[in-house]
Amino acid sequence: MDDSHPFARTPAPPYFAVIFSSKRREGDDGYGAVAERMVELASEQPGFLGVESARDGSGFGITVSYWDSLEAIRAWKSNLEHLAAQANGKARWYEHYEVRIARVERAYSFGDDR
Amino acid sequence: MDDSHPFARTPAPPYFAVIFSSKRREGDDGYGAVAERMVELASEQPGFLGVESARDGSGFGITVSYWDSLEAIRAWKSNLEHLAAQANGKARWYEHYEVRIARVERAYSFGDDR
Repeated sequence: MDDSHPFARTPAPPYFAVIFSSKRREGDDGYGAVAERMVELASEQPGFLGVESARDGSGFGITVSYWDSLEAIRAWKSNLEHLAAQANGKARWYEHYEVRIARVERAYSFGDDR
Repeated sequence: MDDSHPFARTPAPPYFAVIFSSKRREGDDGYGAVAERMVELASEQPGFLGVESARDGSGFGITVSYWDSLEAIRAWKSNLEHLAAQANGKARWYEHYEVRIARVERAYSFGDDR
């Protein structure tokens, strides 16, 4: 993603978040290109509101995607190209991950506009 | 935080999450020590369930802390030592941040136990 605009421009709550925490295995093994494609593909889905992502030098990362409904999240989870990526995620790219689906109730911010 | 155990061991939902996305200014300026202290202090608060954190090379990071109630989140936000850190966060450390408070409704994971 473009690091100069790392924040999602979400609307006023309520909306939904998928918090995806993951530890990568070593080596790229095709991960980078697919990760980039998944952000692009997600952003084309109905109900997509935005995404934020950070991964540190140890291979631990957090990606939070924002959606307008649980239905939109379910549809994204079962998108065919995304299902293929999920399968590769388990087989090749991730050592461990946690997925948490949450309803955002309140939000505030600090700092310059982007 | 200990990168060998980067995942929070949260209980079965529902519980609450504070999603803190931030862009750091350049230079440490005392940030590292206070960030470490805030993780320690948060973990001593009533209702704290765990925390996950990743920051990339560009200075963009996501920290998600997990709590058993909105009351626990409110109490943490108004903790005196945390209030001082928040003030320094605006004055010295962060260019921009977003805080989103969410109720985790569902969770699942993949991979080895930690």
